[in-house]
Amino acid sequence: MDTFFNPSSVVVIGASNSPFNLGSTICRALGEFLPFKGKVYAVNRKAETVYGCQGYAAVNDIPDPVDLAVIITPAKVVPGFVKQCGEKGIRRIVIESSGFSEGGEQGTAMQHEIDEISRAYGMRIMGPNCLGVMNTENKFCCFYGIQKEDFDTFLQESGSISYIIQSGGIVVIVLESFRTDVVKAAKIVSIGNKSDIDEADMIEYYDGDPKTDVICMYLENIKHGRKFLDAAKKVKKPMLVFKVGRTTEGVRAAQSHTAGMANNDLIFDSACKQAGIIRVRSISELHSLPKMFTHMPPLTGKRIAVFTNSGAFGGITADLLIEAGLEMAKLSPETQEKLAKTGQIFNVSNPIDLGPALSMQTFLEIFDILLSSGEVDGLLPVPSLWHPMVIEAIMELVKKCHQYGKPAAIYTPNAAAKTISYRDTHQVPLFESPEEAVRALSVSYQQYLYRLRKEDLRVRPSVEARARQGVSPYQDYAEGA
Amino acid sequence: MDTFFNPSSVVVIGASNSPFNLGSTICRALGEFLPFKGKVYAVNRKAETVYGCQGYAAVNDIPDPVDLAVIITPAKVVPGFVKQCGEKGIRRIVIESSGFSEGGEQGTAMQHEIDEISRAYGMRIMGPNCLGVMNTENKFCCFYGIQKEDFDTFLQESGSISYIIQSGGIVVIVLESFRTDVVKAAKIVSIGNKSDIDEADMIEYYDGDPKTDVICMYLENIKHGRKFLDAAKKVKKPMLVFKVGRTTEGVRAAQSHTAGMANNDLIFDSACKQAGIIRVRSISELHSLPKMFTHMPPLTGKRIAVFTNSGAFGGITADLLIEAGLEMAKLSPETQEKLAKTGQIFNVSNPIDLGPALSMQTFLEIFDILLSSGEVDGLLPVPSLWHPMVIEAIMELVKKCHQYGKPAAIYTPNAAAKTISYRDTHQVPLFESPEEAVRALSVSYQQYLYRLRKEDLRVRPSVEARARQGVSPYQDYAEGA
Repeated sequence: MDTFFNPSSVVVIGASNSPFNLGSTICRALGEFLPFKGKVYAVNRKAETVYGCQGYAAVNDIPDPVDLAVIITPAKVVPGFVKQCGEKGIRRIVIESSGFSEGGEQGTAMQHEIDEISRAYGMRIMGPNCLGVMNTENKFCCFYGIQKEDFDTFLQESGSISYIIQSGGIVVIVLESFRTDVVKAAKIVSIGNKSDIDEADMIEYYDGDPKTDVICMYLENIKHGRKFLDAAKKVKKPMLVFKVGRTTEGVRAAQSHTAGMANNDLIFDSACKQAGIIRVRSISELHSLPKMFTHMPPLTGKRIAVFTNSGAFGGITADLLIEAGLEMAKLSPETQEKLAKTGQIFNVSNPIDLGPALSMQTFLEIFDILLSSGEVDGLLPVPSLWHPMVIEAIMELVKKCHQYGKPAAIYTPNAAAKTISYRDTHQVPLFESPEEAVRALSVSYQQYLYRLRKEDLRVRPSVEARARQGVSPYQDYAEGA
Repeated sequence: MDTFFNPSSVVVIGASNSPFNLGSTICRALGEFLPFKGKVYAVNRKAETVYGCQGYAAVNDIPDPVDLAVIITPAKVVPGFVKQCGEKGIRRIVIESSGFSEGGEQGTAMQHEIDEISRAYGMRIMGPNCLGVMNTENKFCCFYGIQKEDFDTFLQESGSISYIIQSGGIVVIVLESFRTDVVKAAKIVSIGNKSDIDEADMIEYYDGDPKTDVICMYLENIKHGRKFLDAAKKVKKPMLVFKVGRTTEGVRAAQSHTAGMANNDLIFDSACKQAGIIRVRSISELHSLPKMFTHMPPLTGKRIAVFTNSGAFGGITADLLIEAGLEMAKLSPETQEKLAKTGQIFNVSNPIDLGPALSMQTFLEIFDILLSSGEVDGLLPVPSLWHPMVIEAIMELVKKCHQYGKPAAIYTPNAAAKTISYRDTHQVPLFESPEEAVRALSVSYQQYLYRLRKEDLRVRPSVEARARQGVSPYQDYAEGA
């Protein structure tokens, strides 16, 4: 599987210099603006060289060995090219062309033909009807249509979230979201019709990939239920999934898109519970929630302390926390007294009302009092960004969360644009609504409980000590913390 | 009540030139940058003139009659000033000071004292612990802390959404959201502890206010359940409410904020159903949903047609529509044939897959085919904004929706920033997620059904004709469409 993401040499079959040729956009990216180090060839009728990628009329004309073929031709000639690849000894194929099982009987027959050829030669196929792979580490990307601007925005920085996305359209939305968030992608794969490689293969690969900390999925169907469940149960990393086809109408719509079988959603839901997969409720949760896993230690209990300088959010978050199955932490008289001694707090019981004008020093004291109290498992801070000092306090809070091994889901009740710009500039994990912040605490706890149950681990007294030693938040999850 | 929003003369009691004086921010706004035409006075110990507002040492020293007093002094001197206002003949008082029933026994006693004085003089009181009123029509605003920048952003343009918001912090969030949306505020009121004027008084006033088309509320409690229900049942305009205190913990948190009684949430929910009030699920719905009422005709049936050029959104929206109790419209063979004849569509059954590159002409044909088919009650378009032509097509769609009397909830699957900027520049009602768009259709239909049931009206055949005559979407609701 690793060859798909790290090929030394690639051939783009169907790339030519004709106007509107989709394959040429892949050659342009690999040949011109992506700093990918491998060799890239093009195959087309006229043996044209495309954006510096040496052209050949047939796969077998390429003199050197080739690791990976990307096929983007009309569907009817795809089987022939797959055969040429087999003869050439290429064992990894991405088929981006559409018009297969998603497009009726004739397409389904062609897809079967490809399956047979690939089995005969021992090849692995990704697609058809997909975008293939993107690897932010080596800057290899075979998505057709990718622009220089996309590269500058999405591919320059490498992160630790890897995606399995059945639809190309959703890839674009996820990529755009990275523009302004603290998390970035490690690897992305769009698997389309899943003629061979499916979601089960991918989660197995990502689980073993040292660059991946969190696995996110957008699925329109599951190819082999049992294979998926078996693979998912072995995964040690947090997995989030958004699945289309929860209703009959959704299934029908998805079938004309990526041609999967209908899956019973209740069975899928039960599989998710067994394998500790978090079902998310929207595409936006696929990019908003992972930062809770990458930037915060896990939530290991239900008791949440809220503090805010906008009194309304005390009530709003209390409702949301209870509705999410969490609890408002009960602060002891001793802890309340310590808070009162700071001299600047309006209301020292939880939710703590900070009042309008808190100093940096008081913020720091509150963090220590709450995190060291033994009465609180996580924080839900809702401070207005009314002064640059507040964002500095938040940056200190993030450090203290790691120090104490307890998470904070931070929401700043300002215009979204302001929050996003602060998050981007200061690289702090800010959520964009109180609902999102509570949801982040909830999924963190859900993941923790799953690992605890699965590995029969108990909360070890050393968790805070380990956190202080700089053990990564992901490891906390993997080890059941 | 109208005097609160349209006073000819106002006195700000407690405004002085001392540093950090909150009252002075109100004088600064009214005296300097708000183009409010009324006379403004200040009352303070030294009789100082504040930002051009003539100063007096006592209310009775003001030589002319005064319509409205705004009190922003320490709580303990408020009762005395209320009495001075009574003697001066002022009958409308906004008390912004906090420290009353939300702050314990002593505060509660003072609040009772104020109640008695105001009853004796026949005065109406707004607050205490509130921000008072903002009227975008005459540019009167007595919110303390308002800045020139706020005025430029929020108050310059006048819209048709009026708000009743129990918390000052939420006022700020709602105001900030208007920066980039097609809807704007008409009037905003922050009613705080509701010693006298409460939500029931306000909805009654807004219902009769010709500038208000939609009424939105953020409430932490209901003062008099029966009074509220009776008032709400008479209202003809769409009402949306976000209520805190759905859980015991939320109630407790809200009590320390604006001091209301606990209300049973199930009773409140039943009251909302009886009075046709839409309960929203987040603060953001309070500003994202109203545009469905102001910019689109009502949804008068469940049958929704989806069209998109990102195949994934066919399945995503089908799931969401069904989960919201709506239906995927079934297109007849005739309608599908008409769609096929446009020659550019990938999939002509609902959800309609537009394919990657549609012309303006085809967009217009699709709108007409669907809206005139008799098989569709509303549209859920999900077009990518890949070309400026698409936004022009959307602008045409908005016109056609009014022409045919059927709504569209439009979601453009791009980066939120791009969507928001298009919405702002072209003034089209774009939603920011598929969930938000489906929710908008759902609340539109909910409101329609309520009006239909309540007024025992049937869908009249003249609805499309009336829409073509330029009857406003709000009137469609008011008249049961």
